Amino acid sequence: MDKKRILTGDRPTGKLHLGHYVGTLKNRVKYQYEYDSIFIIADLHMLTTKNTKEDIEKSEENARSLVLDAISAGIEPENVKFYLQSAIPEVHELYTLLQNLTTVARLERMPSLKDMARDANIEMPFGLLGYPVLQTADIIGVKSHLVPVGKDNVAHVEIAREIARRFNSLYGELFPIPKVIQGEEAALIGIYGERKMSKSANNAIFLSDDANTVKKMVMKMKTDPNRIRADIPGKVEGNPVFIYHDLFNPNKEEVQDLKDRYRRGKVGDVEVKEKLVVALNNFLDPFRERRQKYETSGMVEEIIVRGTEQVREEVRNTVLEMKKLMGLSGVYKRIRRKAERYLKKQEKKDR
Amino acid sequence: MDKKRILTGDRPTGKLHLGHYVGTLKNRVKYQYEYDSIFIIADLHMLTTKNTKEDIEKSEENARSLVLDAISAGIEPENVKFYLQSAIPEVHELYTLLQNLTTVARLERMPSLKDMARDANIEMPFGLLGYPVLQTADIIGVKSHLVPVGKDNVAHVEIAREIARRFNSLYGELFPIPKVIQGEEAALIGIYGERKMSKSANNAIFLSDDANTVKKMVMKMKTDPNRIRADIPGKVEGNPVFIYHDLFNPNKEEVQDLKDRYRRGKVGDVEVKEKLVVALNNFLDPFRERRQKYETSGMVEEIIVRGTEQVREEVRNTVLEMKKLMGLSGVYKRIRRKAERYLKKQEKKDR
Repeated sequence: MDKKRILTGDRPTGKLHLGHYVGTLKNRVKYQYEYDSIFIIADLHMLTTKNTKEDIEKSEENARSLVLDAISAGIEPENVKFYLQSAIPEVHELYTLLQNLTTVARLERMPSLKDMARDANIEMPFGLLGYPVLQTADIIGVKSHLVPVGKDNVAHVEIAREIARRFNSLYGELFPIPKVIQGEEAALIGIYGERKMSKSANNAIFLSDDANTVKKMVMKMKTDPNRIRADIPGKVEGNPVFIYHDLFNPNKEEVQDLKDRYRRGKVGDVEVKEKLVVALNNFLDPFRERRQKYETSGMVEEIIVRGTEQVREEVRNTVLEMKKLMGLSGVYKRIRRKAERYLKKQEKKDR
Repeated sequence: MDKKRILTGDRPTGKLHLGHYVGTLKNRVKYQYEYDSIFIIADLHMLTTKNTKEDIEKSEENARSLVLDAISAGIEPENVKFYLQSAIPEVHELYTLLQNLTTVARLERMPSLKDMARDANIEMPFGLLGYPVLQTADIIGVKSHLVPVGKDNVAHVEIAREIARRFNSLYGELFPIPKVIQGEEAALIGIYGERKMSKSANNAIFLSDDANTVKKMVMKMKTDPNRIRADIPGKVEGNPVFIYHDLFNPNKEEVQDLKDRYRRGKVGDVEVKEKLVVALNNFLDPFRERRQKYETSGMVEEIIVRGTEQVREEVRNTVLEMKKLMGLSGVYKRIRRKAERYLKKQEKKDR
């Protein structure tokens, strides 16, 4: 049996950090073996909140680092097609043709879109309200069966399911109804323990950070704020250093020992952090090796171009099938045929 | 000096009637001599309220009759480019790229869109909220200077002006700011005097009606409802037969005589109507001649195909210019160039 298809991806707005790894990338690494995987570099989605010339210019470097980060985390380029959304003009056509299959009221019920507008500090652009419709175009353009999403995005895939169903019933069976995989975990806390890890909060350890940077960041981490001296018993639960130890230190004995001593006031923050530095760098070393292998100029670009060409071919076919079912391609085709016949008849007359 | 460009057109939803002529077509006939005229057959706009397979299927015949009606009214195909909107895929791209340059709140302030949803008896589709943005794509896609609209549509062109300005300031000067020509008159009353002339109200005299149909329709017209006998003085003002006489009967003396006698109860409805039949058929006879000349199968289609190809070329160029200014085409171009260089280097190594 053929593998089911899955669509994952990100907007090219920056480098990936440990939070991305834990939240999405870790699962994507697994998916590549189970599913026919496609990875979208969603720059048209980026434009819904970031559309200055500078944003667009930066998207090239960001696209490169998105792919390089994914590969460094263990995604094999031969298993996954990476593609640049804006380089497939047919996506626009697909998107427009879906816009009449959902309502404004339906889209306005999505809190996620309002959050995005608020975070970007803008009044909701028309394009942002269409975010889930454009996602639908991405998903059904490659006839994806599965979409892994976080809790916030389940509602987006619900829209895609509705639109796919609506198309099938209005014009004829064409699209599989995409299913959600709840493959994304809760967000990782940032190094200061206050908010989730993000580039803009300056509280992130990036997958591409070198050993020294990792050390510097870990040494800056906030721990238990009530523990002002090493001999005061500390709290392990919700403590960022231990959250990271649990996630990235495979030496469970060491972690247990540190926790016990921390709770009894028998270990200093520095020791806990130094061991975390070692664990994190051990964790990231294979990432660094894979990154090095692929960071030669042009290598990642070649992967993007190859994927984009393959996906474009598929999207183009999907749009053709859609327009055929809708009867839309037939209209102009018949008009053209009549025009040609008329011209031929005129030619004959003129001779 | 070059002529200014003007964009006019209609959705392909039916034949044109006398109301269309008075409201818009009459002016369009004049514009062809003053401006570089483009006529859109807006089938993508049709889809915002009518998108069943049947609607789409009918759009072919409707597109044909739209063009034939325009030609019959005096538009010379050598003066005007007619084009089918959906046959220009680049329009979709243009449309998507403009969507982030206006807000949902801005579009929701347009009463015309709510009216359209109500008239179609549907909950506002996302695509219908984008109606003015898609219009903007049509207008600026051919860099039109002028857009003739009725009062209801001034607000639509205002959106186009805002979006064009926003694009120019964000990415660089590209689009002329389109101007409204208030070229459209108030709607013509239908033959029963109750509501405006429209196909769906069954109260229309079509430009393509033959002499007999015109007679039948005029004889069914409502006049002054209080005048139950011919010797009762009647009211001329607001009386559909006299509205039509004023508009279509060039014999002003005859019209004045009829009005005077009507007011004094000295003329029967039948005589007024019979004279209107003669006037209307005299008015429509040249339409019928021109229609006959062009209705040969394929002739109108050839006009549509020729116009569509010419306009497509222009829209394609506009999209290229836009993407260049935005920096969007550069991104993928550079990625491709790097990929090519990489592949070449690999080839050398392999030899």
